[in-house]
Amino acid sequence: MIIKVVNPNTTASMTRMIAKAASAAAGPGARVVATTSGSGPASIESHYDEALSVPGLLAEITGGEPADGFVVACFGDPGLDAAREVASGPVAGIAEAGMRAATYLGRTFGVVTTLGRATGRTWELAHRYGVAAQCRGVRATDIPVLDLEADSSARARILLECRAAIETDGAEVIVLGCAGMADLCADLRRELAIPVIDGVAAAVAAVEGLVRLGLGTSRIGEYDRPPAKPYRGLLAGFELGGGPGAVTRVR
Amino acid sequence: MIIKVVNPNTTASMTRMIAKAASAAAGPGARVVATTSGSGPASIESHYDEALSVPGLLAEITGGEPADGFVVACFGDPGLDAAREVASGPVAGIAEAGMRAATYLGRTFGVVTTLGRATGRTWELAHRYGVAAQCRGVRATDIPVLDLEADSSARARILLECRAAIETDGAEVIVLGCAGMADLCADLRRELAIPVIDGVAAAVAAVEGLVRLGLGTSRIGEYDRPPAKPYRGLLAGFELGGGPGAVTRVR
Amino acid sequence: MIIKVVNPNTTASMTRMIAKAASAAAGPGARVVATTSGSGPASIESHYDEALSVPGLLAEITGGEPADGFVVACFGDPGLDAAREVASGPVAGIAEAGMRAATYLGRTFGVVTTLGRATGRTWELAHRYGVAAQCRGVRATDIPVLDLEADSSARARILLECRAAIETDGAEVIVLGCAGMADLCADLRRELAIPVIDGVAAAVAAVEGLVRLGLGTSRIGEYDRPPAKPYRGLLAGFELGGGPGAVTRVR
Amino acid sequence: MIIKVVNPNTTASMTRMIAKAASAAAGPGARVVATTSGSGPASIESHYDEALSVPGLLAEITGGEPADGFVVACFGDPGLDAAREVASGPVAGIAEAGMRAATYLGRTFGVVTTLGRATGRTWELAHRYGVAAQCRGVRATDIPVLDLEADSSARARILLECRAAIETDGAEVIVLGCAGMADLCADLRRELAIPVIDGVAAAVAAVEGLVRLGLGTSRIGEYDRPPAKPYRGLLAGFELGGGPGAVTRVR
Amino acid sequence: MIIKVVNPNTTASMTRMIAKAASAAAGPGARVVATTSGSGPASIESHYDEALSVPGLLAEITGGEPADGFVVACFGDPGLDAAREVASGPVAGIAEAGMRAATYLGRTFGVVTTLGRATGRTWELAHRYGVAAQCRGVRATDIPVLDLEADSSARARILLECRAAIETDGAEVIVLGCAGMADLCADLRRELAIPVIDGVAAAVAAVEGLVRLGLGTSRIGEYDRPPAKPYRGLLAGFELGGGPGAVTRVR
Amino acid sequence: MIIKVVNPNTTASMTRMIAKAASAAAGPGARVVATTSGSGPASIESHYDEALSVPGLLAEITGGEPADGFVVACFGDPGLDAAREVASGPVAGIAEAGMRAATYLGRTFGVVTTLGRATGRTWELAHRYGVAAQCRGVRATDIPVLDLEADSSARARILLECRAAIETDGAEVIVLGCAGMADLCADLRRELAIPVIDGVAAAVAAVEGLVRLGLGTSRIGEYDRPPAKPYRGLLAGFELGGGPGAVTRVR
Repeated sequence: MIIKVVNPNTTASMTRMIAKAASAAAGPGARVVATTSGSGPASIESHYDEALSVPGLLAEITGGEPADGFVVACFGDPGLDAAREVASGPVAGIAEAGMRAATYLGRTFGVVTTLGRATGRTWELAHRYGVAAQCRGVRATDIPVLDLEADSSARARILLECRAAIETDGAEVIVLGCAGMADLCADLRRELAIPVIDGVAAAVAAVEGLVRLGLGTSRIGEYDRPPAKPYRGLLAGFELGGGPGAVTRVR
Repeated sequence: MIIKVVNPNTTASMTRMIAKAASAAAGPGARVVATTSGSGPASIESHYDEALSVPGLLAEITGGEPADGFVVACFGDPGLDAAREVASGPVAGIAEAGMRAATYLGRTFGVVTTLGRATGRTWELAHRYGVAAQCRGVRATDIPVLDLEADSSARARILLECRAAIETDGAEVIVLGCAGMADLCADLRRELAIPVIDGVAAAVAAVEGLVRLGLGTSRIGEYDRPPAKPYRGLLAGFELGGGPGAVTRVR
Repeated sequence: MIIKVVNPNTTASMTRMIAKAASAAAGPGARVVATTSGSGPASIESHYDEALSVPGLLAEITGGEPADGFVVACFGDPGLDAAREVASGPVAGIAEAGMRAATYLGRTFGVVTTLGRATGRTWELAHRYGVAAQCRGVRATDIPVLDLEADSSARARILLECRAAIETDGAEVIVLGCAGMADLCADLRRELAIPVIDGVAAAVAAVEGLVRLGLGTSRIGEYDRPPAKPYRGLLAGFELGGGPGAVTRVR
Repeated sequence: MIIKVVNPNTTASMTRMIAKAASAAAGPGARVVATTSGSGPASIESHYDEALSVPGLLAEITGGEPADGFVVACFGDPGLDAAREVASGPVAGIAEAGMRAATYLGRTFGVVTTLGRATGRTWELAHRYGVAAQCRGVRATDIPVLDLEADSSARARILLECRAAIETDGAEVIVLGCAGMADLCADLRRELAIPVIDGVAAAVAAVEGLVRLGLGTSRIGEYDRPPAKPYRGLLAGFELGGGPGAVTRVR
Repeated sequence: MIIKVVNPNTTASMTRMIAKAASAAAGPGARVVATTSGSGPASIESHYDEALSVPGLLAEITGGEPADGFVVACFGDPGLDAAREVASGPVAGIAEAGMRAATYLGRTFGVVTTLGRATGRTWELAHRYGVAAQCRGVRATDIPVLDLEADSSARARILLECRAAIETDGAEVIVLGCAGMADLCADLRRELAIPVIDGVAAAVAAVEGLVRLGLGTSRIGEYDRPPAKPYRGLLAGFELGGGPGAVTRVR
Repeated sequence: MIIKVVNPNTTASMTRMIAKAASAAAGPGARVVATTSGSGPASIESHYDEALSVPGLLAEITGGEPADGFVVACFGDPGLDAAREVASGPVAGIAEAGMRAATYLGRTFGVVTTLGRATGRTWELAHRYGVAAQCRGVRATDIPVLDLEADSSARARILLECRAAIETDGAEVIVLGCAGMADLCADLRRELAIPVIDGVAAAVAAVEGLVRLGLGTSRIGEYDRPPAKPYRGLLAGFELGGGPGAVTRVR
C-alpha cells in the first residue's frame, strides 16, 4: 500500500522532515511517498497563502506517482474537499486526523500552533470536525513556520505553551498545530508525560486504516467526480477529462 | 464610490448578467464595475472548480481598477477569507449577504440552487454565517449553471422548487442560490408574492452600506495583511510585496 | 425613501442624538425621520423597562408619518417581531444590524455596553442572530444610559473597555451596545484603529438597502398581519382593524 | 402558600378554565388564585398580541392579592423575564414548565398548538429552554384560541395532530401548546396512552416546589430589581418606587 | 404518595443525611423512603465507580418497598435511563433536577462539586439537559465525597468556591454538585444571599410534582420496558420476567 | 501488538463472528484476541441491558490476557469512559470509530441498526462524538440482535433500510449499527456501491493506529486512574488495589 503525503507548501526541507515522521508512523504493509507542491507559497500562514497552495496540492494529488491513500500535510487542511473529489483513494487532513485522535485519549485537548492569526482557522476546523466542545484552547507561539527548524528557542516556547494548555486551559491531550512540529513530538511527550499528537502521524494511521479496510471516498453526492468543463488562463492545465469514475488532467 | 463585483468563473456572458443586476441594486452614489476571472473553470460546480477559481478571483481583487468595496459573485463564496486579507475595502459574498438579508424579512428561508452536489457547501455556509436554524432547506433544480440562460424550461423548474420550499419546507423567504439566477428574481417575486432575494443585489447593498459608513475589514487578528514570503512555480506571480498596510503583487 | 428611526424610550434629547447619527448614515436618496416614544420609561435598563417600552414603540411604527422602512433604536431590539408584523416596510433592530455588520469585517467582535444587567439580553440576541460564536465578550461600563451624555468620564471608561475587548477577549471589531453611544463612534475609531460600529448607522444602512432592493417583510407564516380581535382596558387603543394587508388602529 | 396564576389575555371565561386545571394540580398546602389581565388583547395569537399583553400581565404580578409564587398562563411565556424582576416570588411560564416536565418522561416530545403562526415562537422557546433537540415537532391545529371551547370539532382535530406527532414525528410525550387546552388533558391521556402534559398544571407544580424549597429568583445580575426612573404617557402608572428589594408602583 | 430516594453508593451514613434533606423537601402528602445500594463502591468518584454503582441502584429501583416515584441521589445521575425503563413511577436525577431548577431562578448558574475529575461528567450532563449555555462553570473543591462530613474545613472551602463562582464566573445561582452537600445548603444560602440548590431536594420536588399530576415515564420508544432475555454469571439475578408492562426480577 | 476485542454480551457465537471481522481488519503486526463477557445479558437491546453489561465488560478489560489496545464491540459503546480509566492501553467503541471513519469518506452518513428503541442512544452518541450534523438518520430494521444470524430475511431488510438511507435521507456512507452485522459488510458494499462501515473493523484500525503511534489514554483529568476505596456486596470483587498507575483487582 502506498500513502502519498503532500506538503502543500513549496519548501522541500520541510517535506523531508514530514516524510520522516510519516514513515515512522506507517505500519509494516505501507510505504510513504512524500511530495512537495511545485507551485505557491513557501509556507502557509494566511488565508491568502492557504488558498494559493491548493492548485499545487491538487496537482500532486492527481499527478505523479499513483497512491492508495493521501494525506494533506498542513494543519489548515487546505483543499481537503477538492482533494477528495479527485483523489484515487481516501484523503485525510492532519488537523482532521490529529484532533480526532485526541478525542480517543482524553475528554479535552489543546492545540499549540505557530502564528496567532491561524487560531481562527483552527477553531473553524474544530467546529467542522465536531470537536470544538473538547478543544479547550488554541495557543499560538508566534514562531513563523519556517523558523521552527532554525530557531533554537522554538522548542522551549512550544513547551511553555503546552504547559499553559494543560494547567490553565485544562487540556488532557496536546495536538501539535503545524506539520513543521512533527519532529518535536517524541520529545514533548517525554517532558509532559501526557499524549502529544503529531497530525502527520495521525493522518497516516487514519488513511492506512481506511485503505486496509477497503474504504474509499463515497462517489455519490458531495464528493462525486467533478463535472468536466473548460478551464482557461493560468490554470487551464487543471481541466479534467476522462469518463465517469476516472479523473485525468486534460493537459 | 466604486464597487467591484468579481465573477470568479471565466464566462463573460454570465458577468454581463451579473453586472446588470448589480448596477440595478446600487444607490445613487455608487458605481458598479463587474469583472470576469481570467483563469480557471467556466463555471463553479464542485469543490475542485471552487478551489481553482480562487487564484483568478484574487487576481481581480488585487489588480485592475481600484475599488472601495468588493463582491464575490458566486454562491459558494469562494476565497472570501483570502479576499478580505488583501482587498482595499470591505468584501461580501453573495451567499453571505443573501442569507443574512433573508433573516430581516422572515423567521425562515429556503435556498433554491443549481446542482444537488452544491447543497453540502450551502449548508456549510449557512452554519458559518449563523443562519442554519432559519434555513428550512436547500433545493437543487439540477440545472447546470451555464444552462440557466439557454434552457427555456429553467425558469419553470426553479419556480417549482420555490413553491416546494414554501409549501413543504415552510420557507417564508426565498434566496436564489446562484449568481446566474439574478435576472429571474423580479419575475419570481411577482409569481410567489413573497420576498425573493438575489445574492448579487444583496451583496452590493451590504458593501455599499459598509463603505458609506466608513467601515473596512479589521486589520488585527484574522484578516491582517498576509506576511510576505517567496512564491514559486505557476503561481509565483501572486507573491506580495510592499510595507505594512499595502498589498501589492511583486510580479 | 423615508426611514423612520424610533427611539423606544421617552427621552427626546437622546432621540436628537440618534437622529444625527442616523442622518449621517443615510445615502443620497434616503431621508431619516426620528421619533420619540410617547409612553413608557425614560431609558431602557431592565426587562421591565424593555417590556413597557414596546407599546410606545408600536404606536410610532403604526402611527404618525408614513415611512418605507423602520429602525428600532435600542440595543435590546425591543418589540422587533411585533414591529415586523405591523410595519409598512422592513424593520431592523440596532443590535441585529450592528452585530451582523461586524461579521463582514472580522472573525470576532466584542460588544461594549452600559449596565452589567444588560449583558444577558445581549448574549440572547447574539444567539438569536446566529453570531454568538463570533462574539468574544459583552463588556459593561456600568454607566447608566442617560448619563452617557452628561458624564464627562464616560468616553474614557468606554475606551478602556474597548481596549480590554481587543486585548483580553480577542475582539477584532467593536460593536457599541447602546444607541446613546452613537456620537462616540468616530472618535473611538480614531483611537482604536479598528472598525467600531454604531448600531443606529448599521441599521439605517441595512433598511435602506432592503428598501432599495424592493424587499419587505414576508407576509406568510411568522410575520403575517395579526388577526383582528377586541382589545380592552388601558391598551384598548391598540386594537387593529382594516382588511387583509392593511394595518390600522381602530381607535 | 398562594400561587397566583395570571391569564395574560383579557378573556375571563378562559381564566376560569385555567383556574380549574391549576387548582387540581396544586398540592395540599397550596392555594391557587387565578386572575385575568385587565388590559390588552382578548387572546394572544401574534407577536403584536403578545407584546401588548405584557403590561396587563405585569400589573397582575405587581398588584392585587400578594402571592408566594407566580405562573404566566400563556404558552408564548410573554413577559417572563420582566415578571421575574418584579415578582415577590418565583415565576414559571407554562411552555417552560410543560416542555421541561416532558424531558423527565421521554427522550422526545411533540407540541400540539393552535395557530401555525405560533410555531416559530414555540421553537424559539424550545431553544431558549434547552429542549429543542428533544422536540420532534410543533404541530398546529389552526383552531383560534377562543374557539377551543366553542368548537365541538376541536377535540377531534387536536387528537389527530397528537397521533401524527407520535407516529410521524416520533414523539414519546405530548405537550399541549395552549393554556386553553388544559381541560382536554385527561381525555387525551386516556385516548393516547402516553403522557400528555398541560403546561398550566406543570407550572403550578414547578412553582409550588420552588416555594416549598425556599427558592426565589436571584437578585444579582439579570433579574435584579429594575432601577427606578420616570415613566411617561399611557404607561406612567408603571413607574416603580421604593427602596432596594421592594417593588411598588408609584401611582 | 411514596418517593423512594436511592443512594447509589454503599455508605449508609450518607443515606441518612440524604434522607433528612429529602424528607424536609417533601410536601404534606408525600413520604420519603431512602435506601442504600447493597452492592458496589463506598463513594462514586470515577467513571469506574459510577458504572459499578448501577446494578446496586437498579436492584433498589426494582426491589424492596414499592414507590410512586424515584430519585437517583448521586450528582452523576448514574443509570438514569435504565432506571426509567424499569421503575414503577417517574424518576429524576439530582443533577437533572438541580440544574433545571436553577434555570427558573437566574439566567446563569454555577456548580460547586467535589473532585476535579467529576467536572467532565457534570458538563456532559449540562449538555444533555440543555442547560450548558447557562452553566458558567463547574468548580471542584477537591474534597473526597466521604470527607465532606468529617472534614471540618470542607464548609469553608465550598463557600470559597461558591464566592468564586459568583464573582469570577458570573453565576447568579449555585447548584451543589454532590448529594453529600445537602446539609450545607441552608447555611450557604444565608452566607451568600442568593439561591443555593441542593439537587436531592430539587429532585424530590420534581418527582412529587410529576406523581401528583399523574405523569409517568412514557412506554413508547426509548423507555419502553426492556425485552426479556437470559442473563448469566454474576448478574444472572437481574434477568427480568413477567408480561408486558410488568417488570419483575426472575430470580 | 495484541488488540483485545470485548463482546460485552454473553453470547459466544456472536463473539466468534466479531472475532472474524476484527482479525480481517488487523494489519500485519497486530493480533486480535476476542473475548465474551462472563456476566450479564445475552444481547444488549435496552438501557437496562447496557448498564448491566458493563461489569462483565470491565472484568474483561482488567483481567484475562494482557493487551496493548481494546475495542468495546457493541454499538451502544457501553462503559467506554470507565474502560478508559482502567485499561492498560487505548480503548475505542465501535460506534465511535465507525461514525468517525464515515466522516472521512462523505459529507453525510446514515446508520442502519437493529431495534427502534436503540435509535435514541445512537443519536446521543452521534452528538457526543460531534458527528450529529453529518448523521442524516438512524434507521431501525426491528430485527432483534440474536436473530441477525438465524433470520434468513435479515439481510434483505437491512439492504432495504440502507437504500432508504441513501435515497430518502441523503446518506453518502452507511454505518452498520450493530456488531452482529459485521459479516454482512462486504456483501452490502457490493450491492450499494458506496462505502459501508462495520464498526468492529473501524475500531480495530483506530486502536491499532493509536498503539503504533505510541499513544495511550491521558492520565490527567477525566481518565486518571480511579481512586481506591471499599467495594461491597455482589460487586465486591471489583475493588481496585495497587499503587498509582497500576490497576489491579483486589479480589
